[in-house]
Amino acid sequence: MIPLEDLKALARPAKTKIVLLVMDGVGGLPRPFDGKTELEAAATPNLDALAARSSLGLADPVAPGITPGSGPGHLGVFGYDPLQYRIGRGVLEAVGIDIAMTDQDLAARGNFCAVDGEGLITDRRAGRIPTEICARLCTLLEKIRIPGIELIVKPVREHRFVVLFRGAGLEEGLSETDPQEVGKPPLPVRAELTHAERAAEVANQFAAEARKALAAEHPANMVLLRGFSRYPKISKLTDLYGLRAGVIAIYPMYRGLARLVGMEPIKAGGDTVADEFAALEKHFAGYDFFFMHIKKTDSYGEDGSFEKKVHVVEEVDRELPRLLALKPDVIVVTGDHSTPALFKAHSWHPVPVLLWSKWVRPDGAQGFCERTCRFGSLGRLRAAELMPIIMSNAERLTKFGA
Amino acid sequence: MIPLEDLKALARPAKTKIVLLVMDGVGGLPRPFDGKTELEAAATPNLDALAARSSLGLADPVAPGITPGSGPGHLGVFGYDPLQYRIGRGVLEAVGIDIAMTDQDLAARGNFCAVDGEGLITDRRAGRIPTEICARLCTLLEKIRIPGIELIVKPVREHRFVVLFRGAGLEEGLSETDPQEVGKPPLPVRAELTHAERAAEVANQFAAEARKALAAEHPANMVLLRGFSRYPKISKLTDLYGLRAGVIAIYPMYRGLARLVGMEPIKAGGDTVADEFAALEKHFAGYDFFFMHIKKTDSYGEDGSFEKKVHVVEEVDRELPRLLALKPDVIVVTGDHSTPALFKAHSWHPVPVLLWSKWVRPDGAQGFCERTCRFGSLGRLRAAELMPIIMSNAERLTKFGA
Repeated sequence: MIPLEDLKALARPAKTKIVLLVMDGVGGLPRPFDGKTELEAAATPNLDALAARSSLGLADPVAPGITPGSGPGHLGVFGYDPLQYRIGRGVLEAVGIDIAMTDQDLAARGNFCAVDGEGLITDRRAGRIPTEICARLCTLLEKIRIPGIELIVKPVREHRFVVLFRGAGLEEGLSETDPQEVGKPPLPVRAELTHAERAAEVANQFAAEARKALAAEHPANMVLLRGFSRYPKISKLTDLYGLRAGVIAIYPMYRGLARLVGMEPIKAGGDTVADEFAALEKHFAGYDFFFMHIKKTDSYGEDGSFEKKVHVVEEVDRELPRLLALKPDVIVVTGDHSTPALFKAHSWHPVPVLLWSKWVRPDGAQGFCERTCRFGSLGRLRAAELMPIIMSNAERLTKFGA
Repeated sequence: MIPLEDLKALARPAKTKIVLLVMDGVGGLPRPFDGKTELEAAATPNLDALAARSSLGLADPVAPGITPGSGPGHLGVFGYDPLQYRIGRGVLEAVGIDIAMTDQDLAARGNFCAVDGEGLITDRRAGRIPTEICARLCTLLEKIRIPGIELIVKPVREHRFVVLFRGAGLEEGLSETDPQEVGKPPLPVRAELTHAERAAEVANQFAAEARKALAAEHPANMVLLRGFSRYPKISKLTDLYGLRAGVIAIYPMYRGLARLVGMEPIKAGGDTVADEFAALEKHFAGYDFFFMHIKKTDSYGEDGSFEKKVHVVEEVDRELPRLLALKPDVIVVTGDHSTPALFKAHSWHPVPVLLWSKWVRPDGAQGFCERTCRFGSLGRLRAAELMPIIMSNAERLTKFGA
């Protein structure tokens, strides 16, 4: 893969507009009765027509055979090798709820849990308490005092929260406290790397103080912590390619991922697919690059709801003409990974990619699916290799060498 | 990509002969009225027949999405990863006009330009003065004296020349002096890397002295300098594979590129495609490996002359039987990059490759073009990955490991 500093040196300004439409987990597997994947079962006349004029391919988000989480999956399509850029879960949660992190911060994902009188866990999610209660408990936790440390504790959703430990010398390399089963006490944080000892001490102090602060609460009377991580050093899309990039995503995590690479959040007026396309229309003049994230293909994939996943794809297809009417210069339709409804989980299968611009060699494919993408002219590539192709199609890269 | 030192360890002698036929910028894009690319529009019965017996594929010269210059494009087909081996423009120009560079040399590409009484540029190319005038002015510049430095100044073509600064401690890392627009003075050379300060000083002295030396000339009364670069450390084909390699190319730059990797220039009796094939016939006994370079596919591509590019391909096809009659053991037909006539410039599109030997698995393709190559058994690969395949087809590599 070409190093990012080389791409940066090749970048040149242009007035072109790019839309990257990611249907989360879009790649599928054939259902037994007719051998069709979700993309093949879906009636998608608009995507099919676009596919015929486009260049298709199959992308591996991380590497062949590797199942990506949401973080690496998106970093890949954003053009960053996920094997090189690693982002902790704590950071993901923090950026996903609009906390401005500094380079003094160590972030962790927290879960409120329930413990009995002996401190043994009885419910790892504290009965999935409502988000409002989570918010109130976070203000209690934020009052904990640890010398030399500023604490920022914010609710995410239900029992989930984020804690930022802000202070000097807090390094990564900590074990998590969730024993992953009930009937056991939360584990102490261990420093897995020697330079993380100060951070382990701080995290353990926080957990001990949290136990006291939550003693009178029920059921959420303790915390579990994991994903301790620092804000990554990552060149923004803006710096690399000199473009203004915006993200349209209903779920905070995807906005957070996009912000990590320099995209600005664009507010959608509601949480439907149609609302996201309306936001694209409304803000089309304001950005050069749009990342649109469709969540529910993945959610229904994980539920094993083949039909419902098909319906989300069809819903996207119905809205697609609104995107086409805006006449972007480059259109990419893909996923961040596969979530086959038959597999009910993220999977390692390569992800269909469609790329249209006036400069592609059209494959003339009959539709957009795993099969047609297998024969596409993009071939089989790493997801992170797409971004240079996208930028060249947008005439935003000059030539390499004389 | 397999490291060159490993390839070198695998090389074994053989009496086989290899012809690498590069049609510069051969890859194209479909024209609107019938959807045919240049290769598809060309009547190429000989290439088509060869393609049916060959293994086809699509090669990325540098990396997917990256548009290569001529240097990286050729290094790729010669088997050198262009991301690893970087060759400055000054060196390219120098080797292209048969200057023997030493490892004490810093080369730069020069343009004669015109400046007004205040030193502001009025013509960045000095009216494209004839090459003979350029040659006379170069002798003036060569008389400049800079303590500790030997100067070699040679004409290239029209307003273009090469200067070699020969002396100790001249390092790379200099900015260019061309402000890229008229009405401004030439820029001073800046050291972009600290160890290049001595070189910057020398280059600036040269520019100041050039101004004086050219004061009485018109219109070429000043110079612009760019592409400051040292001769690269690169293993020659001869050392790597133990073969004697020759280059047949009309344009000096391509001979220069080939000499960089150890090929010997073979004189063609004239500057037509037929002359190049005649040179191949004449010298066939003398070399193991021939690189034949056809320039005009690229020139017409850059001009946007779809039909003329088609005619060059047809001209090559007509001469091809002369090559086949020599019965080389391996034949490769490809380009160093794409230059679609519709795009009028080098582009990032992957390049068709045809490889024939008695050891290929023939694809049985209907012709040689972007489409047939997409389905070829070479698949999609980096150009530099071709060389080991070529050498194995020539029975010039032994097995890796026991």
